[in-house]
Amino acid sequence: MPAERVVIIGADAAGMSAAHQALRVAAARSRELAVTVLDKGRHTSYSACGIPYWMAGEVGSADELVARTAEEHRAAGIDLRLGTAATAVDLAARTVTTDGGDDVAFDQLVVATGAHPVVPDWGLRRDGTAYPNVGAVHTLDDGAEWLERFEAAEPGAHVVVVGGGYVGIEVAEAALARGFGVTMVTRSRVMSSLEPGMSARVARTLTEAGVEVVPDAEVTGFDHDPSGRVSAVHWDGGSRACDLVVLALGVVPATEFLEGSGIPVGPKGALRPDTRGRVTERVWAGGDCCDYVRRLTGDRVYRPLGTHATKIGRVLGENLAGGRLSFDGVLETVITRFAGGGQYVEVARTGLSLADAKAAAFDPVAFVTEGTTTSGYMPGAEPIAIWVMADRVTRRLLGVQVLGGHGAGKRIDTAAAVLWHGGSVDDLAWMDLSYAPPVSTTWEVLQIAARRVAERI
Amino acid sequence: MPAERVVIIGADAAGMSAAHQALRVAAARSRELAVTVLDKGRHTSYSACGIPYWMAGEVGSADELVARTAEEHRAAGIDLRLGTAATAVDLAARTVTTDGGDDVAFDQLVVATGAHPVVPDWGLRRDGTAYPNVGAVHTLDDGAEWLERFEAAEPGAHVVVVGGGYVGIEVAEAALARGFGVTMVTRSRVMSSLEPGMSARVARTLTEAGVEVVPDAEVTGFDHDPSGRVSAVHWDGGSRACDLVVLALGVVPATEFLEGSGIPVGPKGALRPDTRGRVTERVWAGGDCCDYVRRLTGDRVYRPLGTHATKIGRVLGENLAGGRLSFDGVLETVITRFAGGGQYVEVARTGLSLADAKAAAFDPVAFVTEGTTTSGYMPGAEPIAIWVMADRVTRRLLGVQVLGGHGAGKRIDTAAAVLWHGGSVDDLAWMDLSYAPPVSTTWEVLQIAARRVAERI
Repeated sequence: MPAERVVIIGADAAGMSAAHQALRVAAARSRELAVTVLDKGRHTSYSACGIPYWMAGEVGSADELVARTAEEHRAAGIDLRLGTAATAVDLAARTVTTDGGDDVAFDQLVVATGAHPVVPDWGLRRDGTAYPNVGAVHTLDDGAEWLERFEAAEPGAHVVVVGGGYVGIEVAEAALARGFGVTMVTRSRVMSSLEPGMSARVARTLTEAGVEVVPDAEVTGFDHDPSGRVSAVHWDGGSRACDLVVLALGVVPATEFLEGSGIPVGPKGALRPDTRGRVTERVWAGGDCCDYVRRLTGDRVYRPLGTHATKIGRVLGENLAGGRLSFDGVLETVITRFAGGGQYVEVARTGLSLADAKAAAFDPVAFVTEGTTTSGYMPGAEPIAIWVMADRVTRRLLGVQVLGGHGAGKRIDTAAAVLWHGGSVDDLAWMDLSYAPPVSTTWEVLQIAARRVAERI
Repeated sequence: MPAERVVIIGADAAGMSAAHQALRVAAARSRELAVTVLDKGRHTSYSACGIPYWMAGEVGSADELVARTAEEHRAAGIDLRLGTAATAVDLAARTVTTDGGDDVAFDQLVVATGAHPVVPDWGLRRDGTAYPNVGAVHTLDDGAEWLERFEAAEPGAHVVVVGGGYVGIEVAEAALARGFGVTMVTRSRVMSSLEPGMSARVARTLTEAGVEVVPDAEVTGFDHDPSGRVSAVHWDGGSRACDLVVLALGVVPATEFLEGSGIPVGPKGALRPDTRGRVTERVWAGGDCCDYVRRLTGDRVYRPLGTHATKIGRVLGENLAGGRLSFDGVLETVITRFAGGGQYVEVARTGLSLADAKAAAFDPVAFVTEGTTTSGYMPGAEPIAIWVMADRVTRRLLGVQVLGGHGAGKRIDTAAAVLWHGGSVDDLAWMDLSYAPPVSTTWEVLQIAARRVAERI
């Protein structure tokens, strides 16, 4: 029997995890798999999340962000073809068309093409080309360009970050670390995935760090010189002269090339893998080109995160080789930190927002509790604020958001574990968590926050 | 109807939590309660766990360790009688006899007397009095004595810590912080509640910090001068000249005064409250004088910890006032850190040990995984080692132990949450936890550790 041909489009976290796991499992089962991976770019398996820290100068080189090189992948037996974009898929013929003109035949296809950064019309020149000092932060090549721009900029240069989400915050940190002035322009609120009170705290921290925060502002366009160099950003009601503009407006699934292929996508273009990672017969998908089932509500949500990509990649690899792993939904757990201008805050969330909970017909009760990351009398104590939401009827825990000093953010994982198991706000409040004065209060602050909500139900 | 008389013996975490919660709940329900609290000591509601940090000089004064003063308790309506030891209980007459000779009548009795430090025969002079430079670290008064001894000691003084558990480690840190030489003598291993490999790592860190660690050593006695001042500690096979000796040998329940009262205690003298906190008719108990049901096995275990004391205290208060809260068992979650001599390690555990798991008829599979606390390329990355144990038959998670740099220890809470819900090693490996380069690896190291065990089952 000839080897089964697995073709994977996309050589980042999901695709390469799938490739390696498929080969490992196939070898263990004495099954023959031929794994080909196509990618339009030059890089594989890098940490996109690490790029802001490279921009900041905290990470010394791009090499450190690369988990495995092309050579390492090839040494594992993967036919890795870089600089090769998939342009179409013919399901009937079982072929992927590439921009080199070659068709690559498959028995099983994995789509792991990731996402594109959102670039609005005003983000490009009229001819569709990029402004030289404006760009997104998405690929390793983007990172290299930003590093050059940062290193070429004058001391005291001003950076406008358009977008107030996780990447926006991280890039603001990088720009501050380089000694630049920073303006953050955001359509609604800073970190709008947080509840308004929590979001306001993050905005306050940014402001105290010297970032000019402009909320509720829709960017309308740029001033630029004849060479295309942007010198100012305009928004409804204001503008700011600047030297560099970072677009941190989120991403959309990179699935355009599937149009007409018959492979189904959701309303926003995301592929919809089932728990095994399958989209349709012979087609599998994972990573930032997919949406996932939200564990608390059962509906689908687009949350392009490296954590999901590596996990579903492994599920795909296992199942391609005849195994049975499942990807059992997401909780929308996210974390970041902001460090700069003398400020430090870790920010994290898991579960539903108040609006999500209402939309899902829960009867949510929510409350914010203030406390300290360690016993108050310890020299390392830092403030922490925790938003907890539970359902009035079932007492089920629905969502938690945390912000605070060192050690605050990772507490979100404890809440995520309760959500994962469908636990109640009482479980969170009363379960047996750890305490020692240098790391928590006697009644862990996350549990005090849960108890306060429990008492309000 | 006259107020119901609640008498609480013991004015620390469990007792005072019970007192306040009972009054709060009674007030909300318009129920009359008269709450009397007796305590043999001079202090209330202090953080015993904070004493080593006071000894180290990290906490400025004993006042900072006191959560609420006697005046604050009295202002809340509690009849607090300090310096009043309970010497006996007469269940039929419903009275507590005190060392002042007064009988105090009760309708409901709460025993929250805490524990005594273990002091072996060799730890006291032949006449039963204490050596002036030897003592335990248990009460605020002990802490004050140690502060005086530390401040009076010459630079370069040598401290022998007898006992290698959590308190031993914390006191070793305090002694190093004061510039003293430190020898730790322990009967078995350092942190013997950890698996041997994890315990060995802690011992190595202590050694690298300059602590002389003497394992498998049973102390046999002291050398002392005519004034009783100890100048050396002897053990099987060795001895060490020293200036101060700390006894950190654990504690036993302070329940001797109940002998003959008819109030049942377990084989080691611990009271055995049910989930509501009740021991027998009219008698309730909580805190370090109790053992608790181990959630994973259903048997009882003596784990005197502030976390349990504050929680069951609240349960007691609620239920004394007619409420219905329950204390649903313990996981044996414990954490500490050691910082000194250029070393830093956080150490934590939850769930069963390998021996416990076998004794409970599980079929345990365990493995240690090494990783980093943040993405490896971040400047703040520190090593972390995680021991995970699961049951081969049911895949149920049974226990986790963690040690590593900043942020390592509190990861134990995430594992504890899975244990609390009876989750599997696969739940821990695959659930949706948070990731950002400054706080974790893409696949959180706790989850990698769980996955490695899952793959071995």
